[in-house]
Amino acid sequence: MATSDVKLLGAWPSPYVIRARIALNLKSIKYEFLEEQFGSKSELLLKSNPVHKKIPVLLHNDNPICESLIIVQYIDEFWSSGPQILPSDPYDRAIARFWAAYIDDKWFPSMRAIAAAQGDEARKAALEPVYEGLALLEDAFKKISIGKKFFGGDNIGYLDIALGCNLGWVRVTEKMNNVKLFDEEKTPCLYKWTIDFCDDAAVKDLIPETDKLVEVAKIIMAKMKAAAQN
Amino acid sequence: MATSDVKLLGAWPSPYVIRARIALNLKSIKYEFLEEQFGSKSELLLKSNPVHKKIPVLLHNDNPICESLIIVQYIDEFWSSGPQILPSDPYDRAIARFWAAYIDDKWFPSMRAIAAAQGDEARKAALEPVYEGLALLEDAFKKISIGKKFFGGDNIGYLDIALGCNLGWVRVTEKMNNVKLFDEEKTPCLYKWTIDFCDDAAVKDLIPETDKLVEVAKIIMAKMKAAAQN
Repeated sequence: MATSDVKLLGAWPSPYVIRARIALNLKSIKYEFLEEQFGSKSELLLKSNPVHKKIPVLLHNDNPICESLIIVQYIDEFWSSGPQILPSDPYDRAIARFWAAYIDDKWFPSMRAIAAAQGDEARKAALEPVYEGLALLEDAFKKISIGKKFFGGDNIGYLDIALGCNLGWVRVTEKMNNVKLFDEEKTPCLYKWTIDFCDDAAVKDLIPETDKLVEVAKIIMAKMKAAAQN
Repeated sequence: MATSDVKLLGAWPSPYVIRARIALNLKSIKYEFLEEQFGSKSELLLKSNPVHKKIPVLLHNDNPICESLIIVQYIDEFWSSGPQILPSDPYDRAIARFWAAYIDDKWFPSMRAIAAAQGDEARKAALEPVYEGLALLEDAFKKISIGKKFFGGDNIGYLDIALGCNLGWVRVTEKMNNVKLFDEEKTPCLYKWTIDFCDDAAVKDLIPETDKLVEVAKIIMAKMKAAAQN
């Protein structure tokens, strides 16, 4: 496996960047991590992803691949000899893609809405769809994992990466709002899954410490507030 | 190929349903089309897609598959012996997925925003991102098709389906706003592509007549207006 021609444009707090890094770890691909500076965009990023101007971007032999779930699928398809990230059965693959899209289109946005909610009532209302989503995901986990550790079975797969990448920010949300999202009683399977996921060798150095992320959250919220006032 | 166990829950005006139907046609899969009634949702739909309650849903041996681009990928992967819909090369596949996501996340929403714009100035402003998107897609077409008829090369592929499914609604937008979106001078490659796409045997009976769609558009707009007044 060639190693020198794989680069990843990213930043450590980004859950989407973490997706690509977990996938590269699972396939044992060595890569150069090119850290973008907070609040600015490098020339290489603007050149590599001119449409969205967003991280992550995987550069493979200088060819850019953008969008985190597309990167994960690319890694799985290009390095097909390594451990499989997507299920091999077409139906299982469709189900994994369905829930990954649900996470990106519905659940992550519902979690982000908590930060924007002003006051106790608004925050309570913002939490509702987050809990509803977790109940759906708990149910999906039972059906998909069929008693195994991960959505992907015995090993971390596509859907584990799609959801688990954001566990750092889940903990920030829990801490800043004094709530429990992945709850041992309400969603016992997902609760156990978070522990197994974060313990995995491909993951454990990638989920940022909560206190470090809280500092990032404070900077982002101050910026949002300043922007809203202008 | 078994034919009796493939059903599609849909409605003729929906571009997302058209995606699934083109893919089934390309693979020569016979299927039963279960038409949902406008303004209501069948028990089967609610049971098959309880999360989003949306068409299309493909039922294959009673197993539901939801979300149009996931259905297209499923069809390509399950009936892998038929003509290939996604490119075989992982990088080409990533590029096709990138632009398909761009179409769903950016370009279609920008086109829908034209209908919501009130007054000439607002409509002019709403048209801008639509034209910008088309310029990007024209450029992408040149790079991807490399002189061939389709994004998919000599045959219709994933990205052709992703964009082309909506050509009926493009024509409605053009007619109701007296504008030209796929323009022979501004985007000559895409203009020619629309003709080739709609002429293809897998497509030609599926893109609805503009006048029929205009009637649907009027009903939807009246409903939206009534909802906004309540």
